[in-house]
Amino acid sequence: MVYIERKKLEEFCASIFRALGLPHEEALDSSRILTAADARGVKSHGVARIRRYAEGIKAGLIKGGITPTVLHETPISLVLDAEGGMGLSLSKKAMESSIAKAKEHGVGICAVRNSNHFGIAGYYAEMAAREDMIGIAMTNTAALGVPTFAREAAFGTNPIAFAAPGLDGKMFSLDMASTTVTRGKMEVYEREKKPLPPGWAVGTDGLTAQDPVKLLDDMLRQKGGGLLPLGGEGESFGGHKGYGLAVMVDILTALCSGGTFGRSVKDSEITSARVCHFFMALRLDIFRTPEDFKRDMSQLLCELNSLKPATGASRVYYAGQKEHEAEAESNAKGVPLAEGVWETLKKTAKELGIAYQETL
Amino acid sequence: MVYIERKKLEEFCASIFRALGLPHEEALDSSRILTAADARGVKSHGVARIRRYAEGIKAGLIKGGITPTVLHETPISLVLDAEGGMGLSLSKKAMESSIAKAKEHGVGICAVRNSNHFGIAGYYAEMAAREDMIGIAMTNTAALGVPTFAREAAFGTNPIAFAAPGLDGKMFSLDMASTTVTRGKMEVYEREKKPLPPGWAVGTDGLTAQDPVKLLDDMLRQKGGGLLPLGGEGESFGGHKGYGLAVMVDILTALCSGGTFGRSVKDSEITSARVCHFFMALRLDIFRTPEDFKRDMSQLLCELNSLKPATGASRVYYAGQKEHEAEAESNAKGVPLAEGVWETLKKTAKELGIAYQETL
Repeated sequence: MVYIERKKLEEFCASIFRALGLPHEEALDSSRILTAADARGVKSHGVARIRRYAEGIKAGLIKGGITPTVLHETPISLVLDAEGGMGLSLSKKAMESSIAKAKEHGVGICAVRNSNHFGIAGYYAEMAAREDMIGIAMTNTAALGVPTFAREAAFGTNPIAFAAPGLDGKMFSLDMASTTVTRGKMEVYEREKKPLPPGWAVGTDGLTAQDPVKLLDDMLRQKGGGLLPLGGEGESFGGHKGYGLAVMVDILTALCSGGTFGRSVKDSEITSARVCHFFMALRLDIFRTPEDFKRDMSQLLCELNSLKPATGASRVYYAGQKEHEAEAESNAKGVPLAEGVWETLKKTAKELGIAYQETL
Repeated sequence: MVYIERKKLEEFCASIFRALGLPHEEALDSSRILTAADARGVKSHGVARIRRYAEGIKAGLIKGGITPTVLHETPISLVLDAEGGMGLSLSKKAMESSIAKAKEHGVGICAVRNSNHFGIAGYYAEMAAREDMIGIAMTNTAALGVPTFAREAAFGTNPIAFAAPGLDGKMFSLDMASTTVTRGKMEVYEREKKPLPPGWAVGTDGLTAQDPVKLLDDMLRQKGGGLLPLGGEGESFGGHKGYGLAVMVDILTALCSGGTFGRSVKDSEITSARVCHFFMALRLDIFRTPEDFKRDMSQLLCELNSLKPATGASRVYYAGQKEHEAEAESNAKGVPLAEGVWETLKKTAKELGIAYQETL
């Protein structure tokens, strides 16, 4: 593991995006969102992805410098066509629009279609929470998830992020896929040659899949099978609930924006194509004074932390707490990157004529 | 099983509520919401509960004829103190307020504190869906759910309902508890002397509980243990996600309304005390024309129904479909009630001096 000073890592990745043709602000915003993921320990959505973004940009699947088309606007809502632009930076702007509308009217909602991978959903929800608002962010993704009782994929990992502030910068910040686990987890089991636990995925017959090699191959060739929704197989453990949540995300993101939904959301060879997002900001004072709300929130978080742990467990966390603790450590000690990720990043930069400067 | 004509059952139950002192409209609204649950096959939330409502009303824990206190109001939001009133009928009015605000401003939100059991959350979400809106309804409930890595309960079954309309009266209608299963399911296993499947509940040590008798006794005496969140024990199957959703519901219902949250939400001997609700209506045309939205929704629902079923399964459903098919059958053939439920209902009525009339 190597530890890179956060600001330096942000600048370095931004220079890669600039070399790929993104305008300065778009490059820096995108870089910051990816770096935030690594800082929080969410490596799957961090700077390791830059190679994929780079390929997408080079292939013209992700377009830099896009100004989204306004499809519809009301005082509280905005519907955008992202025209295949950079999902990360565009999503930051979309949440900023929601926050601006909420400042004026109490609530602001932005639905976006034809976008690209937007990184960690929680980043956008937390932008609202820092403004004394409740923040919500969602995206649909390529269809890899299999509905309850089916044998074919029809929804994505469709993450849901929800953030609400407490006192002193503390917040509750949920950022969860609607599937039990993501494809990345299958790939880890494939590398480690371990059987998949029941409840994670089904094969082409729609029943429990345990062989990660066959499963990933079947998924790649679109032969059937895929990830199970949160709650697992069938209805006994609530799999139909995770399936319902995933479709809810599809409705709010794609049906509200007029974008691509369900089975039609497909990964291309390079990037997840034309995904749709949903951002909402709700001002706390449309309900109560922010002070009262945040005081109660801090009490709730404190109560959750104070619960007696189960045998063998050391602590009870609330959503986002682990990530924020990791982020504080990264800010102090540097952002941890696996050595392979760091070498690949430097190689990507070098191919673009950029060298990492040890000192800024 | 007995089959009672829906309208007759509604009138009969309304007459029971009137005899208990509820005003006419409140009695009829409450009766209709309970009857709707039975008509949809959601027996746990149907007229079998009237005995518990009756006890709550007699004990003064549920108050009839309450006009909620307006704590705060903006063009798009309303915060109410239900003053311990009848959760069912008050919730219908709260969603009506949200819909009225949404008609005028695009979105309407109502948060309610100090209420009582409100029946099926989906009833309220669907009210909005029938008005060309997206509807959301939630409630917190007595703390029976154990957070990931804890051994004590700190959240309720905290249901989430989300409804959005398609063409021809069809709709997507999700209504799910945030726990894997509800306490009622434990009681079924207790009666049938069956061990609980792992992933449903934990005991006083915070680890998998399999003995329903001991579990229910420990829960009753508040010795620890309780229901697991959707996703089960630990993090391997996403239990921390269900836990996060349950807390999200607590935030939107109780923190937005200034009501009771977390461990403090307790069942009294008779009724779930002082729960909080959240209702939201979003007009479709703040995003797109309702026609475009509903056309896409119908296509999505049709695609889900058309998926190839898993081996051994006959159909792939979307959320709410089973319930709506059951409701159509109940409307044609009568609402199915277990004979025991029907006898108890008639007995409750008789004690109040009411006889069931075979003909209206």
